[in-house]
Amino acid sequence: MNDNSAPTAAVLVIGDEILSGRTRDTNSNTIALFLAGLGIDLKEVRVVGDVESEIVAALNALRARYTYVFTTGGIGPTHDDITADAVAKAFGVGIDYHEEALALLAARIKPEDFNEMRRRMARIPFGGHLVKNSVSAAPGFQIENVFVMAGVPRIMQAMLEDIAPKLARGRVVQAVTISAPIGEGTIAAALAKVQAEYPAVSIGSYPFYRPDGFGTQLVVRGRDAALVGKASQAVEDIVRAAGAEPSRHSP
Amino acid sequence: MNDNSAPTAAVLVIGDEILSGRTRDTNSNTIALFLAGLGIDLKEVRVVGDVESEIVAALNALRARYTYVFTTGGIGPTHDDITADAVAKAFGVGIDYHEEALALLAARIKPEDFNEMRRRMARIPFGGHLVKNSVSAAPGFQIENVFVMAGVPRIMQAMLEDIAPKLARGRVVQAVTISAPIGEGTIAAALAKVQAEYPAVSIGSYPFYRPDGFGTQLVVRGRDAALVGKASQAVEDIVRAAGAEPSRHSP
Repeated sequence: MNDNSAPTAAVLVIGDEILSGRTRDTNSNTIALFLAGLGIDLKEVRVVGDVESEIVAALNALRARYTYVFTTGGIGPTHDDITADAVAKAFGVGIDYHEEALALLAARIKPEDFNEMRRRMARIPFGGHLVKNSVSAAPGFQIENVFVMAGVPRIMQAMLEDIAPKLARGRVVQAVTISAPIGEGTIAAALAKVQAEYPAVSIGSYPFYRPDGFGTQLVVRGRDAALVGKASQAVEDIVRAAGAEPSRHSP
Repeated sequence: MNDNSAPTAAVLVIGDEILSGRTRDTNSNTIALFLAGLGIDLKEVRVVGDVESEIVAALNALRARYTYVFTTGGIGPTHDDITADAVAKAFGVGIDYHEEALALLAARIKPEDFNEMRRRMARIPFGGHLVKNSVSAAPGFQIENVFVMAGVPRIMQAMLEDIAPKLARGRVVQAVTISAPIGEGTIAAALAKVQAEYPAVSIGSYPFYRPDGFGTQLVVRGRDAALVGKASQAVEDIVRAAGAEPSRHSP
């Protein structure tokens, strides 16, 4: 599984509403699947509240460590939208109204509605490049290896479309999922041997409990399709040797 | 909103399957709502993969900072279940088979199925106390301020029931949600004034886009119900002053 040449990434979800439990974060799963499709390894997700010092500390830890950081949330027009200022602080740069961002907003917002608070959405840290989206006028931005996106899922997804061409890609990880009506403990020792034989793939074991019975999903992942195929065959063999019939699906 | 006497918490989600996008993490939202009910402030969530050094580093950062840390995932019988060992390493303590954990497992697993790998689930770091659950035989554990739980949502929820009586509680945060068919930018300036007048509450503004139209949800949160009530009234007043009709629901 290790491929030191693959780009890495972290997601930083910003918002009190996630931590209070009011809102379920779906953006990090969307970003995880988006990155998987580009061969970029998502290594870490963090969720912090609308607190400047927390955003700054998390962003600086993550951007130093991973190829890319994707943030969601906190770029709207209200007082609790503090992400742009926090990002400027993290990078130690100033922030001001961005001409192109103002133009984008002015094109979609009626002059009588384009008040001071809505103009705040055009404030971009120095050195930032706009990230546009097809849903709303308000842009996100990229500064160095950090992409700052909206929290509203539909807008965030549209921003990912704008970002995709800007990212370095890696070889896409291939995954095979094998389901079997068997307890994972029954095959655990044999499974560990298969993992040891194929160190270049990663084998995950996930028990499930459903109304129609329990079982295990075994997920074989790796960048070398031939190795993933061989390891998957070996996993199926040990399931059959334990007296159960495996079923395979991709991913 | 600030109440320095309230216990704080972090969640550490452990598992490659979350980072790959294969599995959506629902546990952190469940824990967020559970903690809100006890008046404990969830301050941070992190997701890391099945990598010992990552688990150790994240756990040590979080446990030093918050009253409680809740981990999910990685305590099953297979080779990719490395949480117990990582927790032992983070605390700098040994790990071995725990008599009571072995007895719990032996009571639910047939002798012929109680193999070496299933026995691994009874390995508990020195100083750990068992966290039981009504769904499966395999226990989680508590060590100091860290609660180590299963990743399977149904089992994790059962473990929370066992944990609840062990936690210090704070005053529960009261929340009022006010919906209005209005853009958040229209009321943003007035809303910022209300926030400034009521620093002891936190006012969040969340735009929504639905097939039947767009609008904003305004969430007023605080530990003092009277203040939350007054601030909510003030928020409703500014919505009406902007020409829209607010509707209130709790939470």
